[in-house]
Amino acid sequence: MVTQQLVKNVLKTQLEDIPVDVIQHGIKSILNWMGVAIGASHHESVDMLLSVDKELGSCQDTTIFGRKEKTNILNASLINGMSSHIFDFDDTHLDTINHPSGPVAPVVLALAEKYNMLTSKALHAFILGCEVELRISNAVYPSHYQLGWHITSSTGVFGSAIAAGLMLDLNEEELLYALGIAGTQAFGLREMFGTMTKPFHPGKAAQNGLQAALLAKCGFTSSKQILEAKRGFANVLAPEHDLSKVNVNWGSDWELLKNAFKPYACGIVLHPSIDACIELGKKVSPKEVDYIEVNVNQYVLELTGKENPQTGLAGKFSIYHTAAVAFLDGDAGEQQYSDEKVNDPDIIAFRKKIKPIVDDNMKEEKVYAKLVQKDGKSIDVQIDHATGSIENPMDIDALERKFSILTIPIIGENNTKKLIQTLKEFEKHTINDITNLTTFQ
Amino acid sequence: MVTQQLVKNVLKTQLEDIPVDVIQHGIKSILNWMGVAIGASHHESVDMLLSVDKELGSCQDTTIFGRKEKTNILNASLINGMSSHIFDFDDTHLDTINHPSGPVAPVVLALAEKYNMLTSKALHAFILGCEVELRISNAVYPSHYQLGWHITSSTGVFGSAIAAGLMLDLNEEELLYALGIAGTQAFGLREMFGTMTKPFHPGKAAQNGLQAALLAKCGFTSSKQILEAKRGFANVLAPEHDLSKVNVNWGSDWELLKNAFKPYACGIVLHPSIDACIELGKKVSPKEVDYIEVNVNQYVLELTGKENPQTGLAGKFSIYHTAAVAFLDGDAGEQQYSDEKVNDPDIIAFRKKIKPIVDDNMKEEKVYAKLVQKDGKSIDVQIDHATGSIENPMDIDALERKFSILTIPIIGENNTKKLIQTLKEFEKHTINDITNLTTFQ
Repeated sequence: MVTQQLVKNVLKTQLEDIPVDVIQHGIKSILNWMGVAIGASHHESVDMLLSVDKELGSCQDTTIFGRKEKTNILNASLINGMSSHIFDFDDTHLDTINHPSGPVAPVVLALAEKYNMLTSKALHAFILGCEVELRISNAVYPSHYQLGWHITSSTGVFGSAIAAGLMLDLNEEELLYALGIAGTQAFGLREMFGTMTKPFHPGKAAQNGLQAALLAKCGFTSSKQILEAKRGFANVLAPEHDLSKVNVNWGSDWELLKNAFKPYACGIVLHPSIDACIELGKKVSPKEVDYIEVNVNQYVLELTGKENPQTGLAGKFSIYHTAAVAFLDGDAGEQQYSDEKVNDPDIIAFRKKIKPIVDDNMKEEKVYAKLVQKDGKSIDVQIDHATGSIENPMDIDALERKFSILTIPIIGENNTKKLIQTLKEFEKHTINDITNLTTFQ
Repeated sequence: MVTQQLVKNVLKTQLEDIPVDVIQHGIKSILNWMGVAIGASHHESVDMLLSVDKELGSCQDTTIFGRKEKTNILNASLINGMSSHIFDFDDTHLDTINHPSGPVAPVVLALAEKYNMLTSKALHAFILGCEVELRISNAVYPSHYQLGWHITSSTGVFGSAIAAGLMLDLNEEELLYALGIAGTQAFGLREMFGTMTKPFHPGKAAQNGLQAALLAKCGFTSSKQILEAKRGFANVLAPEHDLSKVNVNWGSDWELLKNAFKPYACGIVLHPSIDACIELGKKVSPKEVDYIEVNVNQYVLELTGKENPQTGLAGKFSIYHTAAVAFLDGDAGEQQYSDEKVNDPDIIAFRKKIKPIVDDNMKEEKVYAKLVQKDGKSIDVQIDHATGSIENPMDIDALERKFSILTIPIIGENNTKKLIQTLKEFEKHTINDITNLTTFQ
């Protein structure tokens, strides 16, 4: 009765039962999520979804963050959920490589806006939605991910259904049915990585989970044991799983606290190398550099071994480009992964100085880098935990800087400042205080 | 390069390349599909989808068959696709237990209506959409189904994407991307059987495939090797598979010809028993019957062993109820599976006379039944191929009777007659000739 116990746990957990540090981390997660969603809101793939949306017609009652257009709650969940994953710059639950906010945040914000609900209710639903998807994620990781499932969408649909269900005041049976309708639609193949369909996954998971809750509220029936049934989610989609992890230590352990924020707009595996090269870049001028050896974990070259990326997106899968911009620009934000940057002759020339070396004993969170100067001198740097990891988290100032770089080009400096302040005091403002600040200027 | 070859095959196959018997079987499939879709169009689950649809707003430019309401093409595909599977009375590709029309027919009809396209184009797209999903189905059956996937929706999404892609004139690359966007959303767990979420599956597959094609037309990118990729559809969703079956003998073998139409509104396993009991009912009056022994394949009792069903839906999973109504009413249509019928004292009494006996040597398509009279005399009957099987198909008159029983209560006798005539000459009429006859009267 794993599914039923989960629903009982969710329903008994009020906002006041949630520890202050979890609530604070929930607010930071929403802040980080809103920044990446607004930042990518004018990507061509968003234009494509909007053009299809226009053909279909819909109520225009729900904000698309960073745009002037509006749409209905289902399509806003899809579009905002997709936007937030386009730059691969959203949050990460490192234990399961899950990006939890994408399928949940757009749903609670859309429902709050349409039905003018309290932001405290949205925050409560957001935290529990994320907690549910991360716990289900724990129960099926790693076999589920290794088989080929994009765990962000395949477990995200449960988070979305729970969050939407709480917003819509579903009772126990309705919430069970919402999980059933959602979970039979668990989807997302890792084959899509590197295409527009990857960020489409969390958006569609948001939409499917919301639709499931809306149907359950009408009385639509489904299975009450989607997680544990013989032909249910875990048995069909995860060769090995441990469903006891779904409900273990409910209320005392919080998976959401393990949600990390990326300071850099690329995969987590590259982050220690970026920290190391930023550090070296502060000490040596580019023209003095002969080469930089970067001793890395085996996965780094497997995942990011592209020597000559041609596009900004491909640059995210190149340790050569990434280490070069980190040294030269002192950052690896979305601006360092533009098509122009990747084709900049100075950066192309510097890439050749980067020598990654696989060290079988190097742990994923570590890097050892050695810079050798033209005059023969060398400087080395060791990174034990990259910026943005749980052990070395981004502080609120760094999060605000990241947010501002992403949103100022879209909503302007003034509204960016106001929006940061409003989101930091999330539950003290109305939903309109937030949405009014997120429109394209 | 299975996926690419498939797309090339589809694109080179014009309507005039399709044999006449395949085209005729395609038209019969649409006729059968429309009957079951209209028949269930006032089920409470359809009302629920419509009530959510109303909250969301949409263009009202596409017909919901059997209703007065209209909606947009995406939601019409969902609703019409669901309707057609509610009674479990739609078509069946017996080799893979796949119901092919559900995810495909609503999509081609919706697009034809919205963009005023030729019905010949819709027929072409319908046939190729079905052919594609059935060939993919062949490649992953039985391991995919046994693992727990509802093959109708999990492969249906490919059929929908192909059909929509042909209607929208996608080129080779766009059609590949449409398959990628669709296939990463392959979904549907058999755990949902017996709930409203089961018929939701083909409807949502129709919607997802259509959305995939609409996005691909805008330039949305995806994988070009969804079927064969390491982390693609077959490797992730089917423990064993043979992708050579996807393209084998393309253009000469047609899977659609193996699409059978059900004369009875319940699972195929019961159909030989129904034929036998109808036959016996013609020869003996009920009050003379002591008992009827029905010797059946092992799956019959495993799947339909409910002795005391309480609802019409549960009656479909009871050989006792089913054999009783077949004997007493001479039919097992949707009317024999109402809640009233299941609770009718005469039928409850007659159920006790049904004695199913598992015979390990009995093949699925066969039944041997022996009726023993109160006076000790006995009559036996042997069924080798049930009505509606490929070997013993429903003729067009029987299909028309089935259609009429389903549609007359919804659209009236006059429009039913006209609609049958129009659908039988499908490509000679405009789409509006069809949709105008399908509105609730």
